[in-house]
Amino acid sequence: MSTEEFLQANEEYAASFNKPDRSLFKNVIIVTCMDPRLNPYEQLGLKFGEAIHIRNAGGSAKEALRSIMVAQHAVGVTGPIAVFHHKDCGMSRVTTSQMRDLVKKATPGRDDVAAEVDHIDFHHIEHIEQSVKADVKFLVDNPVVLQGTKITGWVYDVDTGKISKVDEAVAVGA
Amino acid sequence: MSTEEFLQANEEYAASFNKPDRSLFKNVIIVTCMDPRLNPYEQLGLKFGEAIHIRNAGGSAKEALRSIMVAQHAVGVTGPIAVFHHKDCGMSRVTTSQMRDLVKKATPGRDDVAAEVDHIDFHHIEHIEQSVKADVKFLVDNPVVLQGTKITGWVYDVDTGKISKVDEAVAVGA
Repeated sequence: MSTEEFLQANEEYAASFNKPDRSLFKNVIIVTCMDPRLNPYEQLGLKFGEAIHIRNAGGSAKEALRSIMVAQHAVGVTGPIAVFHHKDCGMSRVTTSQMRDLVKKATPGRDDVAAEVDHIDFHHIEHIEQSVKADVKFLVDNPVVLQGTKITGWVYDVDTGKISKVDEAVAVGA
Repeated sequence: MSTEEFLQANEEYAASFNKPDRSLFKNVIIVTCMDPRLNPYEQLGLKFGEAIHIRNAGGSAKEALRSIMVAQHAVGVTGPIAVFHHKDCGMSRVTTSQMRDLVKKATPGRDDVAAEVDHIDFHHIEHIEQSVKADVKFLVDNPVVLQGTKITGWVYDVDTGKISKVDEAVAVGA
C-alpha cells in the first residue's frame, strides 16, 4: 500500500464520515495477534466504535498490560477483556531464543543490539491452549487489573474461521 | 459483548468462511492506537488479509518494536511501516507520571506494584505531530529495523475521518 493508496481510500472514507457517538462503545477490550488473517471486527461481529482493540505479535496479554492499564485507570473502562490467540501463529513457530539469534544475525557487529535483544521476551507460544490460559491467569492475578474484571481466553482457528473459548475467570485485583 | 454474543456472531461468520489466500497480503505493517474510534480497515481501505495490524495505547512504535522484529526477521515482511497517532488521544490527556499515580492509587499498600509501575514508560503524547515524528525517527534509527524499510508517520483526525501524512523516511539499518 503506497501513501497515495492510503490517501485515496481515506478521501472516499472521509467524504461520508459520520463521527461515531461515544455511546457506541460496548465497554470491552479485545487482545489479538497482528496476523493479517485476523479481523476481529468481522470474526467477532464488532462494529466501529464498539471495542478497544489491542494487537501485537501473538496477542500477548503481557505486552498489552500498559494499554490495559491506560484503558482501565485513565479511560475508565470496566468491562471484560477477551484474549485471542490463533492456530498457525508465527509466535508458535519461533522461540524467544531463535528470535534473538535472528535479530543478532541481521545486525552483525552490533554488540549493543545483541545485549539488548537478550533481555526481550518474545512471548513464544508453545501450546496454544496453554498460552491462552497463561495469559488469562496473568491478567487475573495481576494487581493492576481492576478487581472483578471478567477475563476470557479464546482460540481462533484460521482454517475454519471459528472461535472457541478455553478459559474464563475474574480478576482478583490488588 | 458477552461470550454468547461473540459465539453467535462468529457462528454466522464461520458459516460463510473463505480461508484467505496468503497472496492477499500487501506486505505492509500498520501501527495505530487501540481507540474504538479507529478502524484501520475502513479508514485506510484495507481489506481482510492485506496488512499486519499492531495496536496499542497511543499507537506507540516503541512498544510495537517486538512485533515489528517478529514480522521482519521471522515472518519475512519487507514492506513499509505506517505509524498512525490520532487527535484527542487518551495518551495526550495523561502523562506517564499521572498514569503511575493512577495505578498506585488503585493498588493501595502494594509497594511492589508501585516500584514496578515507576519503571513503565506509558508513552505520553505531548504534541501529536512531534510524537509521530519521534516514532518515525525511532524506527528509522533503530538498528533492528531492516535497512531500507520505508517508514511513514500519519495523524488521524477523529472529528473528520481524515488522515494526513506528517513524516516519511527510510530505515538506516544496523
